Amino acid sequence: MSSPAPTPERVTTSGIALLSDALVDQAVAVDRVDWRPPMPGTEADLVTVAGDPLRRTANARALEAVLGVQATLVDVAPASEVLGLGRGEFLHAGPPITWDRASGPLRGGLMAGAAFEGLVDDPEAAPASFADGTFTLGPCHHRGAVGPMAGVVTPSMWMFVLEDPETGRRTYCSLNEGLGKVLRYGAYSPDVLERLRWMADVLGPLLRAAVRAKAADTSPKGGAVDVTGILTQMLQMGDEAHNRNRAGTLMLLRDLAPYLVTAGPDAGFSADDVAAALAFVGGNDHFFLNLAMPACKLALDAARGIEGATLVVAMARNGTDFGIQTAGTGDEWFTGPAQVAEGLFLGDYGPDDANPDIGDSAITETAGIGGFAMATAPAIVRLVGGSVPDALATTRRMHEITLGENPRWQVPVLEFQGTPTGIDVSLVCRTGILPQINTGMAGKVAGVGQVGAGLVTPPAEIFPAALARLAELARARG
Amino acid sequence: MSSPAPTPERVTTSGIALLSDALVDQAVAVDRVDWRPPMPGTEADLVTVAGDPLRRTANARALEAVLGVQATLVDVAPASEVLGLGRGEFLHAGPPITWDRASGPLRGGLMAGAAFEGLVDDPEAAPASFADGTFTLGPCHHRGAVGPMAGVVTPSMWMFVLEDPETGRRTYCSLNEGLGKVLRYGAYSPDVLERLRWMADVLGPLLRAAVRAKAADTSPKGGAVDVTGILTQMLQMGDEAHNRNRAGTLMLLRDLAPYLVTAGPDAGFSADDVAAALAFVGGNDHFFLNLAMPACKLALDAARGIEGATLVVAMARNGTDFGIQTAGTGDEWFTGPAQVAEGLFLGDYGPDDANPDIGDSAITETAGIGGFAMATAPAIVRLVGGSVPDALATTRRMHEITLGENPRWQVPVLEFQGTPTGIDVSLVCRTGILPQINTGMAGKVAGVGQVGAGLVTPPAEIFPAALARLAELARARG
Repeated sequence: MSSPAPTPERVTTSGIALLSDALVDQAVAVDRVDWRPPMPGTEADLVTVAGDPLRRTANARALEAVLGVQATLVDVAPASEVLGLGRGEFLHAGPPITWDRASGPLRGGLMAGAAFEGLVDDPEAAPASFADGTFTLGPCHHRGAVGPMAGVVTPSMWMFVLEDPETGRRTYCSLNEGLGKVLRYGAYSPDVLERLRWMADVLGPLLRAAVRAKAADTSPKGGAVDVTGILTQMLQMGDEAHNRNRAGTLMLLRDLAPYLVTAGPDAGFSADDVAAALAFVGGNDHFFLNLAMPACKLALDAARGIEGATLVVAMARNGTDFGIQTAGTGDEWFTGPAQVAEGLFLGDYGPDDANPDIGDSAITETAGIGGFAMATAPAIVRLVGGSVPDALATTRRMHEITLGENPRWQVPVLEFQGTPTGIDVSLVCRTGILPQINTGMAGKVAGVGQVGAGLVTPPAEIFPAALARLAELARARG
Repeated sequence: MSSPAPTPERVTTSGIALLSDALVDQAVAVDRVDWRPPMPGTEADLVTVAGDPLRRTANARALEAVLGVQATLVDVAPASEVLGLGRGEFLHAGPPITWDRASGPLRGGLMAGAAFEGLVDDPEAAPASFADGTFTLGPCHHRGAVGPMAGVVTPSMWMFVLEDPETGRRTYCSLNEGLGKVLRYGAYSPDVLERLRWMADVLGPLLRAAVRAKAADTSPKGGAVDVTGILTQMLQMGDEAHNRNRAGTLMLLRDLAPYLVTAGPDAGFSADDVAAALAFVGGNDHFFLNLAMPACKLALDAARGIEGATLVVAMARNGTDFGIQTAGTGDEWFTGPAQVAEGLFLGDYGPDDANPDIGDSAITETAGIGGFAMATAPAIVRLVGGSVPDALATTRRMHEITLGENPRWQVPVLEFQGTPTGIDVSLVCRTGILPQINTGMAGKVAGVGQVGAGLVTPPAEIFPAALARLAELARARG
């Protein structure tokens, strides 16, 4: 006589609750695991990629490379010098795009850039030269740079220069103009251009003097500004480093202020100029975003070109297309239509006024901060919408699609858990969970500027597309 | 025939679990309420105070007065000018005390102060003049001031001057020296005195120039520094404004930096002096504590002298005694022995090296921040000990002994709940829950300096003592 199967003491269940509920009725301890079906059509590619013998070590190497990078601010210089950008060349956020497909805010930013460079007297005169190819476009990412929102960079704009001291690799980002009517949100009115000129004539050179003086200072207070270190601190100070950069901006100001005071006069600037620069930086809570972004790119670029790695190295939007690149697929962009964020609007603006998602700033989420670190910045829900429990849940959920945690960037309220880092295309496809991005919203009409801020995800289909290419490469390797 | 009593659908229980567990067994929904017995011997006084017809409106007035105060930084000036402090007069933290009962760190701070004032050449020569009454002692609180740790103030020290613009009332606090070997922790070595001299010769006058220039500036960026406003922001940036003042310090720096640059030269200071002042403030995460404290005193002083009010208006320690004052009991101190904090120690120091609790800084908890706002500053557990859940639970628990919430000072992670404000002597006695203070720890031997930071509560008996006096006054009113 066979004995009956013993009752299990503990069972792990996933999916519908029928089984788990039945077990509970029988007094069996149950660990319920949230289960989601994979994205439709990805099953075969998921099997292929999961079976790729390179995958595990490639992803481990990729994550280690990302986490090992320290970003330091070593210089501030015009884009013509450090990016080799020539007259009539324009950089923009996101994957490649042509003028005819460009959204309103990108067009507005390019028009502002053309007027700022003196290529046209009136921004309204610029479109013809973009349309006929006289002025050329290229992604920031293709020159080692990142740009928030429209992300327009022209030769005369001053750039932060970040360096990983271990490898000497560098990334670049323009200086942040502030909020409201600004070029990066597609505005091109005279006050926008005037601000850009002051930034090129005074702010950029003053920052260069201070950054260089600090880097050359061999005292304990000297050395290049430790951008990664500031990020570590600001994540414990209510910033998620995408739409809250208050503490980060203040720490940058703290680090540079003494050198602005001493090096400014040597560079030919008056006390009033120095005071104006201090007030401008201190008055713009988002100033540090333009350091957080290239710091994230510097980290993620370390994982580029690792065969078999399914880690996402860039998420970027040009206002029309949302594109991703992965460590294992070289420079190829996988793109789909950018979505309109849901969130909170300024003044009388509403959802109909908002352009689809734009900017390279999703590089922060790609590196595990921004929307991925919302739990550490619950006050952000007052800017982008949602609730505090949502913010906490979002960070927890992002751990389900990432390869690891960043031990340097911790979330105190989650008992110092590291931020979820290294989006894995396989995990996104297997769970259907999309990366959560929080973002500013530009008006869809060129010239309007910012209309709000909110929450958005990439178009789902770009992850299966990237997975398909990773599977194809795995199959080709045999 | 009588029908049986209907089964209740929902029952609220407190105290031991016997009843609630029995109800759960009968499938009745139970709301469990934590119940604690009142402090022993307070029952009669609790009944008297609860029956005082003045109490409810008095406490409402007191809380409203506290919450209505805005603290602005209007000046920086020597204590001799603004406190009328004469040569040989010394202020200290906490309730009144004499030299013979003074603890090591208070003695050390007084010795440093005597040497700083040139009353003695060597700090070691000072004790005799304190012991024989040549040098006199008085509490900071008796002169409208507060002082962290030893809280020693001498005539030549420069003070922040805070004002409530509505009433013109003012409070005062010295400038923060930084951490480690500093006067306020009882150190008196030559480097301590040298720093104090630089603070009196350069930092104080420079801050005065900047604070006055900003206050006189009628542009949108000008006006007196809004200390209450900075507190509002810093509570959303990981500071609880007692042992974390990082964001607060940086915002002060942001507000004053442009004016230091422009007003400094007019006051006769060089660019190097200005840079040194910026670096000193920026390098001392606790600098803003000395603004948070007088801002809290300014708020709480608004409730002083309200007959029948059971709200605590000051908690302060001199290193020997812990004292409280209440709104309804005038200038009387209710004192008991200060406790040694439990926490984390610097270097090789341990519990045996620590002096009992010292300083006026518990004014922050009295006003609803510091230990009361630990939920908003979970990273602080790395400094003072405890766990993140403890920090969240502490803020929630403090709501049980406070009269209300501060709508201006919100805790984002608790869904923007206001900080627990207005400690009620009755509620403390009725629940036995003591106010939670987080604090620095001074070495118990004069001259040592800081040895750690930790968590501490007042001696329990001072609350029944204050309650007894409130009951006596209520009975006398009839």
